Amino acid sequence: MTITTQPTESMTAVTTWLGEFGAALTANDQGRAAALFTEDCFWRDLIAFTWNIRTFEGRAEVTAMLTATLDLVRPSGWKVTAGEEPAEAGGITEAWIDFETSAGRGHGHLRLRDGQCWTLLTTLYELTGYEEPRGLRRPMGAEHGVTRERTTWLEKRQHEERELGVTEQPYVLVIGGGQAGIVLTARLRQLGVPTIVIDKRPRPGDQWRSRYKSLCLHDPVWYDHLPYLKFPDNWPVFSPKDKIADWLESYTRVMELNYWPNTEAKNASYDEASGEWTVNVEREGQPMVLRPRQLVLATGMSGKPNVPSFPGMDSFRGEQHHSSAHPGPDAYRGKRCVIVGSNNSAFDICGALWEVGADVTMVQRSSTHIVRSATLMDIGLGDLYSERAVASGITTEKADMIFASVPYRILHQFQIPLYEQMRERDKDFYERLEKAGFDHDWGEDGSGLFMKYLRRGSGYYIDVGAADLVANGDVKLVRGQVDHLTSRGVVLADGTELPADLVVYATGYNSMNSWAADLISADVADRVGKCWGLGSSTAKDPGPWEGEERNMWKPTQAEALWFMGGNLHQSRHYSLYLALQLKARQVGVPTPVYALQEVHHLR
Amino acid sequence: MTITTQPTESMTAVTTWLGEFGAALTANDQGRAAALFTEDCFWRDLIAFTWNIRTFEGRAEVTAMLTATLDLVRPSGWKVTAGEEPAEAGGITEAWIDFETSAGRGHGHLRLRDGQCWTLLTTLYELTGYEEPRGLRRPMGAEHGVTRERTTWLEKRQHEERELGVTEQPYVLVIGGGQAGIVLTARLRQLGVPTIVIDKRPRPGDQWRSRYKSLCLHDPVWYDHLPYLKFPDNWPVFSPKDKIADWLESYTRVMELNYWPNTEAKNASYDEASGEWTVNVEREGQPMVLRPRQLVLATGMSGKPNVPSFPGMDSFRGEQHHSSAHPGPDAYRGKRCVIVGSNNSAFDICGALWEVGADVTMVQRSSTHIVRSATLMDIGLGDLYSERAVASGITTEKADMIFASVPYRILHQFQIPLYEQMRERDKDFYERLEKAGFDHDWGEDGSGLFMKYLRRGSGYYIDVGAADLVANGDVKLVRGQVDHLTSRGVVLADGTELPADLVVYATGYNSMNSWAADLISADVADRVGKCWGLGSSTAKDPGPWEGEERNMWKPTQAEALWFMGGNLHQSRHYSLYLALQLKARQVGVPTPVYALQEVHHLR
Repeated sequence: MTITTQPTESMTAVTTWLGEFGAALTANDQGRAAALFTEDCFWRDLIAFTWNIRTFEGRAEVTAMLTATLDLVRPSGWKVTAGEEPAEAGGITEAWIDFETSAGRGHGHLRLRDGQCWTLLTTLYELTGYEEPRGLRRPMGAEHGVTRERTTWLEKRQHEERELGVTEQPYVLVIGGGQAGIVLTARLRQLGVPTIVIDKRPRPGDQWRSRYKSLCLHDPVWYDHLPYLKFPDNWPVFSPKDKIADWLESYTRVMELNYWPNTEAKNASYDEASGEWTVNVEREGQPMVLRPRQLVLATGMSGKPNVPSFPGMDSFRGEQHHSSAHPGPDAYRGKRCVIVGSNNSAFDICGALWEVGADVTMVQRSSTHIVRSATLMDIGLGDLYSERAVASGITTEKADMIFASVPYRILHQFQIPLYEQMRERDKDFYERLEKAGFDHDWGEDGSGLFMKYLRRGSGYYIDVGAADLVANGDVKLVRGQVDHLTSRGVVLADGTELPADLVVYATGYNSMNSWAADLISADVADRVGKCWGLGSSTAKDPGPWEGEERNMWKPTQAEALWFMGGNLHQSRHYSLYLALQLKARQVGVPTPVYALQEVHHLR
Repeated sequence: MTITTQPTESMTAVTTWLGEFGAALTANDQGRAAALFTEDCFWRDLIAFTWNIRTFEGRAEVTAMLTATLDLVRPSGWKVTAGEEPAEAGGITEAWIDFETSAGRGHGHLRLRDGQCWTLLTTLYELTGYEEPRGLRRPMGAEHGVTRERTTWLEKRQHEERELGVTEQPYVLVIGGGQAGIVLTARLRQLGVPTIVIDKRPRPGDQWRSRYKSLCLHDPVWYDHLPYLKFPDNWPVFSPKDKIADWLESYTRVMELNYWPNTEAKNASYDEASGEWTVNVEREGQPMVLRPRQLVLATGMSGKPNVPSFPGMDSFRGEQHHSSAHPGPDAYRGKRCVIVGSNNSAFDICGALWEVGADVTMVQRSSTHIVRSATLMDIGLGDLYSERAVASGITTEKADMIFASVPYRILHQFQIPLYEQMRERDKDFYERLEKAGFDHDWGEDGSGLFMKYLRRGSGYYIDVGAADLVANGDVKLVRGQVDHLTSRGVVLADGTELPADLVVYATGYNSMNSWAADLISADVADRVGKCWGLGSSTAKDPGPWEGEERNMWKPTQAEALWFMGGNLHQSRHYSLYLALQLKARQVGVPTPVYALQEVHHLR
């Protein structure tokens, strides 16, 4: 094989741009740098320039950000990532790029249009001098040579388990040992940040084990990998809940996390003068005080149940509970079950109850968006997270970065055509649902499921089969608002009576800052404000436009208080940036936060 | 980038040869096929042609093998593996190849010299119709759709755990739940072969946990990966014993093995008429009978201790035990310890005892080969198993195949120059050892450690520091044979008396067939004969030349009885071929064994 190479047009365009951009930054000429962007540009920064997670829109915002940050950040070494050929399509040239800052090493993505930057993603992936011990830097394990009274790996682990949180305080306390807390703690461990993660349940993975028995992940395996340790290639596409639970339990052990099960945080307060939290916890029934410097709430973005208060609930003689407390169908064979709600949990619970022969009624209070799982996998995720993507070189890490490179402001434009394809492919399915009286939507702007998730974290069902039960009448569908309960059942606003032995409130969850209200104070919760949502001015996501998820994985108005959560993709990807923010603070790398989250909504 | 390609000379040479070879095989013309090989050729087959593990040397053996096997095997589709460019160096053209047989799909490696085949490796890696559920074939996990009374993943697992071995018999019983038993069972599970693996210890990994506390793997991480689930890239180079133990425990769970801890096999007998074993086991103290079709002994190639019987042992008043029963140094601070032996275990134990301040004497009875761990890693393994190898595209799987492609008959020729390099690099080290009176060797033909391992599984120490203790006299060295023990210590043949509070017999292990003698009968053990060794006519590996490890991972003279073992590299690689042999028998794929192992030595 004879190979002759010359720089492609795309490569020339990108290196030219990077050269000019780097020179403008080195010259501290923010205006010249901003002029290299299109008028409608986006620059998304994940902690590399701002020690924050922000997207800047238009040249003025870019200029302002650079003016505030360049002195400290001193970016340099802009280049195309080795082995990644820039490519042009539809007038847009895309490239993977690398750079350095005064604090560490960065990776990013660039889209050029007519020689100007349309979108730029900059991320910091490691701190210079605090690189993770991986690959060539991995630990030796054995300490060669002989040393009197050496301590072994086991003795060190046992010492740490015995002393950390007792005689030595952790730098970080993570409350909530679900997937988000686990992956963040794994990253902190690799970075050498003393961390304890606590959870009230007996075993890692119990967050999944305790859910209804037929539950499987709704996202496919390629989307679900944890950092450091990928699922093996025999892992099922949709992981059964107990299998993912066992994986999480093994993972906490293999990654050597200081995971305290059976431990509940009772209250917490922060002393600004000493920079220390006082957290009262109950561990295995015994009260203890922990004094971390940083507190992370990883209690689940859908952690705190939103339990409605309908008149008459106290007089209802049957069983009633929030979907999060639903024990599964086994006790309800032959019983009359009313499920209030029509999103994921409602459908899953309806399906499982129907399977055991319960008499099931779903109360739909507002429109819901449904996509079939196979269709979503193929059209919605297939280019980034699938066996096909892996085969074409899109690793999970690369897929995460590609996804991160599309600014939230315009993400819906890329999503809408996908959902139009889905609508077309499953036309019959949607017609049947409609005929059954189901109130279906595609999101306010037709942008579908993922935008709903990012904007409000609710309002949809990924159909794994239960939608057909509604379409064919096996699960009875009623539309309307709940007016009140009687001793015998649920009464809707139009007077419809639904006799019930069981009422399940599949009514969703509150904003994560409600956890802060319970644990710390209403004052602190209000200071932080609403978590999650982009400020899209769509239902349950009021404006103004934020451009990023509110308060997630980044500094909040409450010092030393952080919110960690999201699905497995987000937990995996954003845990890196949160971990680096915490590591930088631990070791005293300056972390001036640019454009700290403002609070526009309390919850 | 402009790419123009044309077949290279190497590619042309390989495709020409494969074309002629394939045509000769299709024409059933064994002579024509054999004429395509050099006079001094080697063809190594891992179950693809022979349902055996054999190397054929010279054209006559190739012809004979083809004559016996071609009718059934019907090989076809010989081609260069996609993406693997053949390359020429030093007059040898190397290529990766693929082919098919009537039973499945094969992968191999070819070396051409002057247009003729010098070495050929053929392996079968999957059975057609019984492919493992990986990648595109991975299970869905969730069963989409709703089904009345569906059983969940957890319920199926619980059912299997409850019933297998009780109401349903396993097809395979693996005795010994160390690394070899675990990885074989993992492969069998993926292939859908009902298998139970039993171990007498309480937890998977206890084989490692129970060893002395400073023990770490002597092989580096790249050499140690298990199938399906690689160690994460933060894994230490030399895994501490408790860490690898935890990994094995997590692995058995994540891979969903039917692992019975606290279970000991008492005796076993095979009924040829019914093709069934009767194995009496004691599980958690309760007697049970298992009736598998196939029995695998995975009790460790260094499993059964070789305890010497010296006169006077029964009168010795101190403590004495075999190295495998050594509890670690903690109880022997300040005590006089005599270690009989000078290989790996002896050095490890001497080092650990010295570290706690014991008075340690090593009794060297015969010469030992020592290489320093870092040197071995760099020169001996670095091209195949290292971060450098990974970076240059040599995956673990590829490294295994490269290693397998070099015929055992000539492997020492490739090894000798490596050990000459090591000798040169660590010249000072060996001089110091010699000065201290240590009897050092490089193997009879100077081929070093790995050949010693393959030939006799003993006779060496991978130095992780303790050799210096001998060199500098911290550990006292005495050379000679043990004559007898007194109540106070050890007396050597030359009359030297070694007073001792503790005597450790680091005297190695018996052949694996000694396990069969204990478990089944002396008759069956003798029928199988010695396990391990190549027949190299060097010390502890008597001829005649076998060309492969005796009785390992392949059929033996005892029907339905198999031996599984070796280091992590061998366990990983050869477990595939043993698993496929068992799977083929389970589903009735014909498996005529060509050139069944003959027995030349009983133990």
